[in-house]
Amino acid sequence: MKDITDFKSYALELAQKARTAAGKLAAVSVGQKDIALNKMAELIRKHKGDIQQANTYDIEAGTQAGLSSAMLDRLKLTDKRIEAMAVSIEQVAAQKDPVGQTITGYLRPNDLRIEKVRVPIGVIAIIYESRPNVTADAAALCLRASNAVILRGGKEAIHSNTAIAKILREALGVAGLPIDIVQLVETTDRALVPELLKLNQYIDLVIPRGGESLIRAVVEQSTIPVIKHYAGNCHIYVDKACSVELAERIIINAKCQRPGVCNAAETVLFHKDIADSFIPRICEKLVERGVEIVGCPKTQQLFSKASAANEQDWFTEYLDLKLAIKVVDNIDQAIEHINTYGSHHTDAILTDDISAADKFTAGVDSASVMVNASTRFSDGFEYGLGAEIGISTDKLHARGPMGADDLTTYKYIVKGNGHIRQ
Amino acid sequence: MKDITDFKSYALELAQKARTAAGKLAAVSVGQKDIALNKMAELIRKHKGDIQQANTYDIEAGTQAGLSSAMLDRLKLTDKRIEAMAVSIEQVAAQKDPVGQTITGYLRPNDLRIEKVRVPIGVIAIIYESRPNVTADAAALCLRASNAVILRGGKEAIHSNTAIAKILREALGVAGLPIDIVQLVETTDRALVPELLKLNQYIDLVIPRGGESLIRAVVEQSTIPVIKHYAGNCHIYVDKACSVELAERIIINAKCQRPGVCNAAETVLFHKDIADSFIPRICEKLVERGVEIVGCPKTQQLFSKASAANEQDWFTEYLDLKLAIKVVDNIDQAIEHINTYGSHHTDAILTDDISAADKFTAGVDSASVMVNASTRFSDGFEYGLGAEIGISTDKLHARGPMGADDLTTYKYIVKGNGHIRQ
Repeated sequence: MKDITDFKSYALELAQKARTAAGKLAAVSVGQKDIALNKMAELIRKHKGDIQQANTYDIEAGTQAGLSSAMLDRLKLTDKRIEAMAVSIEQVAAQKDPVGQTITGYLRPNDLRIEKVRVPIGVIAIIYESRPNVTADAAALCLRASNAVILRGGKEAIHSNTAIAKILREALGVAGLPIDIVQLVETTDRALVPELLKLNQYIDLVIPRGGESLIRAVVEQSTIPVIKHYAGNCHIYVDKACSVELAERIIINAKCQRPGVCNAAETVLFHKDIADSFIPRICEKLVERGVEIVGCPKTQQLFSKASAANEQDWFTEYLDLKLAIKVVDNIDQAIEHINTYGSHHTDAILTDDISAADKFTAGVDSASVMVNASTRFSDGFEYGLGAEIGISTDKLHARGPMGADDLTTYKYIVKGNGHIRQ
Repeated sequence: MKDITDFKSYALELAQKARTAAGKLAAVSVGQKDIALNKMAELIRKHKGDIQQANTYDIEAGTQAGLSSAMLDRLKLTDKRIEAMAVSIEQVAAQKDPVGQTITGYLRPNDLRIEKVRVPIGVIAIIYESRPNVTADAAALCLRASNAVILRGGKEAIHSNTAIAKILREALGVAGLPIDIVQLVETTDRALVPELLKLNQYIDLVIPRGGESLIRAVVEQSTIPVIKHYAGNCHIYVDKACSVELAERIIINAKCQRPGVCNAAETVLFHKDIADSFIPRICEKLVERGVEIVGCPKTQQLFSKASAANEQDWFTEYLDLKLAIKVVDNIDQAIEHINTYGSHHTDAILTDDISAADKFTAGVDSASVMVNASTRFSDGFEYGLGAEIGISTDKLHARGPMGADDLTTYKYIVKGNGHIRQ
């Protein structure tokens, strides 16, 4: 961590270096990018010990600072997670390069040739909290799409992030690429961010990932376009045409498999016709796994260990072993509840009924709508995008898990042979 | 024009009506939208007299208000332009509907099926100046993409816009669609716009089209995402490997065919090796057509009727019969000039040299980059998008001419059969 006091100059230095590096990327071939990405994965594996040593400092500091167990879980870099980080970069390396792809190309009746071709966005700033694998994922995806990236991670992961960024820059250097394609902000002082957010002549896009207050602050302060990644208040609706085994299996997975992440389920809605038989059984299984349950009056009636849910519960992303349960009269009520209280992130229906599934997927206004699958699947890795830069809850430019393609824009290249407009 | 004084309530009324209408659009079939669009075109032709009568009032008021000839030209609805308006809507009617299109669909190794499907954005507000055909184009494209639209046209076109919007709503009614899919703001008071721009719970996207000050004001006031349509400061670079006939033909077309529009050329750059023979001849032809020429010292030396261009000229979108000319040493200087002074809208190279064309199309960071064609071609009609909602100078979501596809977002629909995450 650097001792930085002049935040304006430091922000400008980062942004100008990124812009210069982005300019140099135009001359870098796809093959060179592949080599750099594979080198990143290789060095992450090689220097696993350094990463875990740095991560230890963060975990210690986080424990002392009283972070929740879910937060500490997000922070922790186990062997498996470091391996996943490397695999994720290798997937990005193996991806078809988005830059230069012709999205559409056609001749007009006057023989003018129109091509819509993917090009990099330029310089991207990512402002994120806690999870250190974002450092590697974001850098890899930005490089795949030939963008330079400025990474501003959370205070609690500064040691892990610094160790990872050092390795990534080492890999860029070994592969002969400008190392300033990837820059990590070397201060955790909050005063830096507003300075960065005003540099719209150097930075083309800001992606904030973290709590709602962080994102709102970025949107308010930024003169640069922002793609927002709000919370995941994810729902499961259990339709009347559903087996209790399937419902139990998916609900337990969606709630318990990793409660601290944005695609974990936070509310389950049960159709009234199956509530009596499903709720007691499933709730008991959840409580066995340490889940605290809050519910509507009907839920409390069916399962006495449930406390009463208040209006705020329906809006809440617990990120913890806590679940809200409500009984609804029909699918329309379920869709309305989800569109009203949800965060348009990921919502699932469990049903055997085709028309219910169609109604749900059409009616729920969310980035990912699932049928008979755990909400936990909505991420870039599971969708085959390799790593992901995040899960957009915006409707513009990119929605849901964002991969390398989403980090590009396009230009129209139009070719004539003396064409003039009549 | 209504006599409206409570702008807050009026804005809310418009936005809520739009949101309700957008909700109803989900149940409207592609065929119904086709019928409504064709009906719009039919009624525009049928009521051509009404439109032209209303347009007369605007032209009279504009003349009295001292609008420039270019501005009056943009405002004027000739027979040809009304016919073009109808044809444009018919093209949109004939287009493949973007809503419901599967952008990609694939199975993952675990047999989870992922589909990325186009869905409407929701409610779109368009804030525009002068050209009344925008009213028809915007409404048609928003309907094609199943969005509701709030149209806020310029004061100078209020009569024309009102006449057109009335016809469009009549067509919606005849076709059995909710007429509030298309709403025109019935006041020209500027106090309404800031109220509208704060209604982010009802409006999903704002597209301002007009002068830079209008757009900057919208960006500053809006809590809704904005796609910007800044000016078209378009360039033509005449490479050394180019015939004087082709250069003359394209430059005259790009400057003179319709100087009042954003894709008209504003600056021409000549390679120094052909400047001596090209500049006197081409400038003479331009002056014959009433074009005023400003240029660099070398240009003035070669063509005595040219006045001196100042630094500001290189940044200026004249929208009039005026052209800036500069002699450059090489293609790199041309690219640098365009990226520095241009507005990233549309820029063209005239050359027979493949490597010069490739260098230019790769190096110029603009929405449309042309080779051997007039800059005048960069619009939705010429690119085959049917009508266009505008020409985005942003890099996010949409760049260049925006058609119906650009007025959609997508959702991921994910289908499993009990899938849980390991």
